[in-house]
Amino acid sequence: MNEAVAAADTAWILAAFTAVSLMVPGLAMFYGGMVSVRNTLNMAMMTFGAFAVVGVLWIVFGYSAVLGNSLGGLGILGDPLEYFGSSSLLEAPAEPGLPPALVSGFQLLFAGITVALISGALADRMKFGAWMVFAGLWATFVYFPIAHWVFAFDSEDGSVIGGWIANTLGAVDFAGGTAVHINAGVAALAVVLVLGARKTFPVSPRPHSLPLTMLGAGILFFGWFGFNGGSALSAGNSASVVILNTVAASCAGICAWLVVEKLREGHATSLGAASGLIAALVAITPACGAVSPLGALVVGGAAGAVCCFAVSWKYRLGYDDALDVVGVHLVGGILGTVLIGFLADPAAPSGATGLFYGGGVDVLWRQCVAVAAVLAYSFAVTLVIVLALKKFMGIRADQESEYDGLDVSVHGETAYVLDAVGLTGASKHGTDAVLGAEAITTRAADPAKA
Amino acid sequence: MNEAVAAADTAWILAAFTAVSLMVPGLAMFYGGMVSVRNTLNMAMMTFGAFAVVGVLWIVFGYSAVLGNSLGGLGILGDPLEYFGSSSLLEAPAEPGLPPALVSGFQLLFAGITVALISGALADRMKFGAWMVFAGLWATFVYFPIAHWVFAFDSEDGSVIGGWIANTLGAVDFAGGTAVHINAGVAALAVVLVLGARKTFPVSPRPHSLPLTMLGAGILFFGWFGFNGGSALSAGNSASVVILNTVAASCAGICAWLVVEKLREGHATSLGAASGLIAALVAITPACGAVSPLGALVVGGAAGAVCCFAVSWKYRLGYDDALDVVGVHLVGGILGTVLIGFLADPAAPSGATGLFYGGGVDVLWRQCVAVAAVLAYSFAVTLVIVLALKKFMGIRADQESEYDGLDVSVHGETAYVLDAVGLTGASKHGTDAVLGAEAITTRAADPAKA
Amino acid sequence: MNEAVAAADTAWILAAFTAVSLMVPGLAMFYGGMVSVRNTLNMAMMTFGAFAVVGVLWIVFGYSAVLGNSLGGLGILGDPLEYFGSSSLLEAPAEPGLPPALVSGFQLLFAGITVALISGALADRMKFGAWMVFAGLWATFVYFPIAHWVFAFDSEDGSVIGGWIANTLGAVDFAGGTAVHINAGVAALAVVLVLGARKTFPVSPRPHSLPLTMLGAGILFFGWFGFNGGSALSAGNSASVVILNTVAASCAGICAWLVVEKLREGHATSLGAASGLIAALVAITPACGAVSPLGALVVGGAAGAVCCFAVSWKYRLGYDDALDVVGVHLVGGILGTVLIGFLADPAAPSGATGLFYGGGVDVLWRQCVAVAAVLAYSFAVTLVIVLALKKFMGIRADQESEYDGLDVSVHGETAYVLDAVGLTGASKHGTDAVLGAEAITTRAADPAKA
Repeated sequence: MNEAVAAADTAWILAAFTAVSLMVPGLAMFYGGMVSVRNTLNMAMMTFGAFAVVGVLWIVFGYSAVLGNSLGGLGILGDPLEYFGSSSLLEAPAEPGLPPALVSGFQLLFAGITVALISGALADRMKFGAWMVFAGLWATFVYFPIAHWVFAFDSEDGSVIGGWIANTLGAVDFAGGTAVHINAGVAALAVVLVLGARKTFPVSPRPHSLPLTMLGAGILFFGWFGFNGGSALSAGNSASVVILNTVAASCAGICAWLVVEKLREGHATSLGAASGLIAALVAITPACGAVSPLGALVVGGAAGAVCCFAVSWKYRLGYDDALDVVGVHLVGGILGTVLIGFLADPAAPSGATGLFYGGGVDVLWRQCVAVAAVLAYSFAVTLVIVLALKKFMGIRADQESEYDGLDVSVHGETAYVLDAVGLTGASKHGTDAVLGAEAITTRAADPAKA
Repeated sequence: MNEAVAAADTAWILAAFTAVSLMVPGLAMFYGGMVSVRNTLNMAMMTFGAFAVVGVLWIVFGYSAVLGNSLGGLGILGDPLEYFGSSSLLEAPAEPGLPPALVSGFQLLFAGITVALISGALADRMKFGAWMVFAGLWATFVYFPIAHWVFAFDSEDGSVIGGWIANTLGAVDFAGGTAVHINAGVAALAVVLVLGARKTFPVSPRPHSLPLTMLGAGILFFGWFGFNGGSALSAGNSASVVILNTVAASCAGICAWLVVEKLREGHATSLGAASGLIAALVAITPACGAVSPLGALVVGGAAGAVCCFAVSWKYRLGYDDALDVVGVHLVGGILGTVLIGFLADPAAPSGATGLFYGGGVDVLWRQCVAVAAVLAYSFAVTLVIVLALKKFMGIRADQESEYDGLDVSVHGETAYVLDAVGLTGASKHGTDAVLGAEAITTRAADPAKA
Repeated sequence: MNEAVAAADTAWILAAFTAVSLMVPGLAMFYGGMVSVRNTLNMAMMTFGAFAVVGVLWIVFGYSAVLGNSLGGLGILGDPLEYFGSSSLLEAPAEPGLPPALVSGFQLLFAGITVALISGALADRMKFGAWMVFAGLWATFVYFPIAHWVFAFDSEDGSVIGGWIANTLGAVDFAGGTAVHINAGVAALAVVLVLGARKTFPVSPRPHSLPLTMLGAGILFFGWFGFNGGSALSAGNSASVVILNTVAASCAGICAWLVVEKLREGHATSLGAASGLIAALVAITPACGAVSPLGALVVGGAAGAVCCFAVSWKYRLGYDDALDVVGVHLVGGILGTVLIGFLADPAAPSGATGLFYGGGVDVLWRQCVAVAAVLAYSFAVTLVIVLALKKFMGIRADQESEYDGLDVSVHGETAYVLDAVGLTGASKHGTDAVLGAEAITTRAADPAKA
């Protein structure tokens, strides 16, 4: 590769990194809008907090554990000491190519967002401190290994050994159907099984702000182009096909969910549009480089339709997956990963040939093995982590806090202060009185203590 | 062009595509904030829904109809079968250049957003199903042809024939003043003439959330740099001049609207700032590559001032252009397109010479012909579509739904659930009672049915 | 530099520009969410309005004053006439490199955002007209000179002389710790000292929408990658290291603030997470190219912890820095700029060697001189401007307006109209009555006048 092409690739990955970074508040708003007004801030804080903890661990040893040379050449875990502290990432690459610091930053965002995805299932009832500890442990023992399996490719000269799914098995996962979505989805299931359902389950509070949820979904849609398109790691035809497939699937997913819910429930809802969009984006994540644009319509449409059913399985099976992380990320992730086995078009960037294109079951079984491996490992290790946390520090907020809402009880805040006086332009005296009533200070509880 | 320059261009257009994608939720929030709280979700759904329908059609035959070889070499419509299904877009270009898949994705966003723009005029009273059908028909019979006229350039070797406005007439429209803004604006006028005014017209409900509208306007501002800058289709001086002109016009538009409304009404409003910003962005869209930075200040300032007057014409003329799509997009689009005839600076990327730079009326009359052609075709065909829809499926929500608001009556949702209890930290029993009261479930209306 | 590398650099800076543009609504939402519901729109308008005024001035003479050849070669101010009107920016650079129009656009955003930052300290009580005039004067007499000192580099061939801090002193300020954050922070202090405290000080209204503030903080986080990463002015290893350091610091800043406030106040708040994030971003701005990733964790963590204390100094010292511009931008900016003197890693892009890396105090004293110079100049000149404004036009809203809130009294609007009827689906008659009650029109106060 010449220096100028490397610079062009770097330009796109810098932009893709930047786009993905907006998924952090995007996810916080998407989830925050869906819960009641008593737990909005807690929901957003689970995203921001997990992201922060994971980001710090990533700099210290996460990058090394994911993209370091595989320990013993086994393809199970990168050497966490190889790039410990990340200082060696300051150096430009010896040969023209993507700077390691950029790859590290890009993958840091993947790690932080994947952990944060889990939080949607745990809404309204998990202890915030336990969540923060969980985030660090889960990243270390679940995400970092699985990301190594899927995202660490062997170097061309054989000097660096990567993960077993990417290299030995050779399953197709362009941007993280397994490592991100199936992983987060099945982990969410494991946590809620230990955490238990909210007191009101199967009744859920209605989303307190659907505009916030639609905004969040729209921001995630935007960031996903960086997520999927950036996973091409270059600015060329691959990334271009990927973004076209991603937007095609998105459109089909919205249409499919709206049609299914209109037929089932009689209404095409905004929550349905947002959910169909995200379900389609989840499903196209592994497949975005493997299918044709028509195939992308099929993947997105199938995800929108299937996940529209899948989100009600929790009522039948009795697990309180509050914001449908299982129904959307686990189901959508499996769907997209497995559909590659059928729909992979050899003319697409991944170069795999699915069953419908005459490739037999060769791709299909590899996809299924990858799915099964991630399901089994993530579920088992997550269960161990969450059981240990339950035993040693407790994971569930007390009943009083759950009733009052975690915003007030845990964070000492409420999401909104919208007194009527502010809306109607009350008299000076009315305003005065309210000012007194809402008199707690910003950022420091007691000015006298300052 | 060498491979590395093509990669750099690709990097920028990938980033520009990504930026434009955020305009989808941006527009939904911009419009959603401006309507009453009873129609917020419906407004946002008109954007998301239209985008989804148009995106699917684009993959199937839209790209081909816009950028396919002109049928009969007439410059009227691209061959809808040439790239039917878009599968051939998987291939990298034979010569170094932008990948066709990327051009397709970028133009898909233009198509979806243009259709969604229309919805602002139709707020609070259109049947959602009819809107979704309208979106598909309008894209097919109005947008695709006009986009071909304006955005399809002849290939250099003459093997591909593009649209008549871009090539035969040679009017200057850098990023869609005609095909996007005049087109959507005049179509909005045609629809509201058939649809009729809201029951309360000329009284309108106040915007239910101006912060949402300002956020939406700000997101559109952001996306517009991808929209205009990406239309350069390369990462060089053209795109750089375009973004400088676009930001210059934006600033002038805000200032102009605020000054005019301060003088007229006594208040500089946040809705005015948002409107001035959008009006300026509309007007600079065709002109961003044709004027100098000072010219951009004039275009933006003129748009801010003129549109501030234009939004009240609806009261005099009696059409209920609810969110001022006519007043901003139609008027601003015409203004910007025609001002090129005066202000085009030959040193700017478009290379045209306007009246004020000694170019005579040559540019001016071409601009006026382009405006007139788009006005006439879009108005007429839109009228036919909407009259047909009115006859065959009905386009207006029933009176009961209009009174109740479309969010509840059509989508079965309300935008917000902000019970006071959530804001004040009520007692356990109070909370309990409310939880019972708001007990409808998320995503599945009846868990027992699941 | 060859043409293709220049195109790649241009691609990234176009994308970075676009990302930074979203900081305008991001800042408006961040600040708008933190004030009461009676001043939300005014707060947002201070950002949009200042940005618009500064942008117009930038096109006319700002670019020239910042990046023009230094008047008399003194390094104090660029020649405001050299590029007056910006028309010469239409031309592509003679040698392959970044187009001047792009550099101008990028720096325009820096100027507009820096001025807008100040507004947070002045919440709830400043006359809007005075703020708009202040914005123009402050940009002209404070920001443009200081930006010249810091951002104008001598050309390699010596034909263009830049600013004294960048060239003569050689202090390290990668993306504006001095010119942006210290500058805005100390100016905010000067203004509030003249403007006086709000009537209720030291009691402040609670933030009216913390989700809006978290969204705003998240958008700023996103934009900051364009801000810092774009300041590399190329798409290579420097920008890559910068974004890695920026995200690392962000994560550490969130963690540090949450830990400190949990220990001090008993709650980890969402406002704390947002504040820790912004404090860290401020501190890493000058240092993002000078430290290692571990160093970035230290800078971000130190900023999160120190600023968490610094925001309560205002209660002790009695200045009403409403939204903590002093506590976050001034303190965080000084911290980050000075820490470079200790933590600068010679392997990082800036190439400076700090005290802890064996470089002695050479870097440290230069950093301190830069800090002191910006502090002194900005404070003094800001004081003169604001005292003059106070004398000649008045700067403080009258007491009635302050009590009623500036949204209603100055802008004639309220942020939200959320009548219960809209939330509960009232009867037709109820809705009817409300429609009548809220009957003021959109965009034109009186349709009869239209």
